[in-house]
Amino acid sequence: MRGAVMYAPGDVRVEEREDPSILEPTDAIIRLAATCVCGSDLWSYRGTDSVNEPSPMGHEYVGVVEQVGDEVRNVKPGDFVIGSFFASDNTCEICRSGYQTSCVHRVGMGSLGCQAELLRVPLADGTLVATPGMPDDDLIPSLLAASDVLGTGWFGAVAAAVGPGKTVAVVGDGAVGLLAVLAAKQLGAERIIAMSRHASRQALAREFGATDIVEERGDDGVAKVKELTGGLGAHSVIEAVGTQESMMQAIRSTRPGGHVGYVGVSHDVELPGQELFFSHVHLHGGPAPVREYLPQLIELIWNREINPGKVFDLELPLDEAAEAYKAMDERRAIKVLLRP
Amino acid sequence: MRGAVMYAPGDVRVEEREDPSILEPTDAIIRLAATCVCGSDLWSYRGTDSVNEPSPMGHEYVGVVEQVGDEVRNVKPGDFVIGSFFASDNTCEICRSGYQTSCVHRVGMGSLGCQAELLRVPLADGTLVATPGMPDDDLIPSLLAASDVLGTGWFGAVAAAVGPGKTVAVVGDGAVGLLAVLAAKQLGAERIIAMSRHASRQALAREFGATDIVEERGDDGVAKVKELTGGLGAHSVIEAVGTQESMMQAIRSTRPGGHVGYVGVSHDVELPGQELFFSHVHLHGGPAPVREYLPQLIELIWNREINPGKVFDLELPLDEAAEAYKAMDERRAIKVLLRP
Repeated sequence: MRGAVMYAPGDVRVEEREDPSILEPTDAIIRLAATCVCGSDLWSYRGTDSVNEPSPMGHEYVGVVEQVGDEVRNVKPGDFVIGSFFASDNTCEICRSGYQTSCVHRVGMGSLGCQAELLRVPLADGTLVATPGMPDDDLIPSLLAASDVLGTGWFGAVAAAVGPGKTVAVVGDGAVGLLAVLAAKQLGAERIIAMSRHASRQALAREFGATDIVEERGDDGVAKVKELTGGLGAHSVIEAVGTQESMMQAIRSTRPGGHVGYVGVSHDVELPGQELFFSHVHLHGGPAPVREYLPQLIELIWNREINPGKVFDLELPLDEAAEAYKAMDERRAIKVLLRP
Repeated sequence: MRGAVMYAPGDVRVEEREDPSILEPTDAIIRLAATCVCGSDLWSYRGTDSVNEPSPMGHEYVGVVEQVGDEVRNVKPGDFVIGSFFASDNTCEICRSGYQTSCVHRVGMGSLGCQAELLRVPLADGTLVATPGMPDDDLIPSLLAASDVLGTGWFGAVAAAVGPGKTVAVVGDGAVGLLAVLAAKQLGAERIIAMSRHASRQALAREFGATDIVEERGDDGVAKVKELTGGLGAHSVIEAVGTQESMMQAIRSTRPGGHVGYVGVSHDVELPGQELFFSHVHLHGGPAPVREYLPQLIELIWNREINPGKVFDLELPLDEAAEAYKAMDERRAIKVLLRP
């Protein structure tokens, strides 16, 4: 099969990889209908994360089950399925508490390389969720978004305790930040402040439910959010970048007793204990337990109540994965969908 | 009046200070029935916090109202009252959300020097809570504990989302840590692990409700808590020290999706963003909004359902404040009550 492999920062190639096969009786093999490039893939593309050997890439996937192991019960060949970027058993105590990305048996899907034609999904019963039927083609981008960026933005909003009557600020205007705006709207936020300085992203943020746009960053951005909230800060702030600046911007934009939900993968972040202590914020985040939200997200998409697929503003054949990375790196595209 | 003043690390003197008087119409003057030395006073006593000029000390107090300003309505001369270490208006949006220690008009009581005979309490209506009548003398230590250490331990437990069925670990065996054990018991915890290597403190922890004692510290302590919790970690961990080691011990002792409530005043703490991200814990803490809990805590004490005053294992006249600091610094006493 064909699959994307990163050889070094900036060097992504699509080449022949061995077809996956059932290794464990709990595995499933799926033929991908679509996959994509994630903002977090750019950490290694840009050299922030090291690339020590040629690495299969991608952790987002939707597709049709081709084959299942002997112990798989919840999905069958022919089902159209979606899974999260971590495989999980969905039965351990941690999964049952809603933290499937910390499942005691979790497997990172990134190591399996989802930017490919075929994919082995471990722990298929706990990982995959089937759609009610074969989706119309125009639903594929939204279903693919549910595999990571929608679920991640949703977790950010849940972690930030978004709800009716709340003022929410979102730091980061990538796909996750934009979909955090959508999630905040769905969860009943009264006011949603999107922090973005790009016209096209601002427009999509407004379409997803943003009521205010703040272009300033860092402490200027904090001052602007405070100005919009009677000097107190937002009730809920979703952090969707992962840098020191964005984390401090999120913490400082939150009122005492408010909630920061952080889902940007932390890179070189050190949080000053004393400032955090006196900030009085709640801090929660990490790898989003997308599996927890998949049934609900699939239903919203299936009923066409939300259209998160709009974050894909470029679609390319899998063979052009290199160009997909480049377009996202240069911020020419918010998110690129790849068709195998 | 007499009052304790710190001149330098290790140098506390009781001397004549000017009697306080009503400065604002919202002030009250109270005659102290008891005051005490706080673990956080030791930061400056030990030179960790600097002492730039002679500073009146103390932020914990109970006593009888002597005089009130023209606008005070909720307390009157003759009332026995308790307040928190931050004065608060209890009417602003932050107070109404339960974070009176971040009140937009807050005043730190430490700057007024509560280790004294008389005290000016700003924002008396929002700060002071009267007991149902004049308390029996044996209730004074418990009522004094409510002014800070009980309320702080209680907030730690609330911030750590303690509740029925939960396993709770407490890092720190000072007065706050011990009273966090008491709070966890009151809030319905199923299992309470106290982390302490001092026999007398272990005994008090057990009396307050601890079911397990762990003597190990740091990563050994973490390993022990994991061993006691099926490898997962506790649901709720209360941090009551404020150092890098204690914070990391608390975070690492908590299961994914669990809650860390931290109430030790942070000193030189830097939290590694990436570890925090993948830990999946909830983190919340800061200066405890004791005012929020005072009515409930006074009721529990008044009805003799709890006896938090047991943390005072030494009682001295105010004039011997220097010895009180010394005894706590040398860990000869858990907490020292001072009688003016």
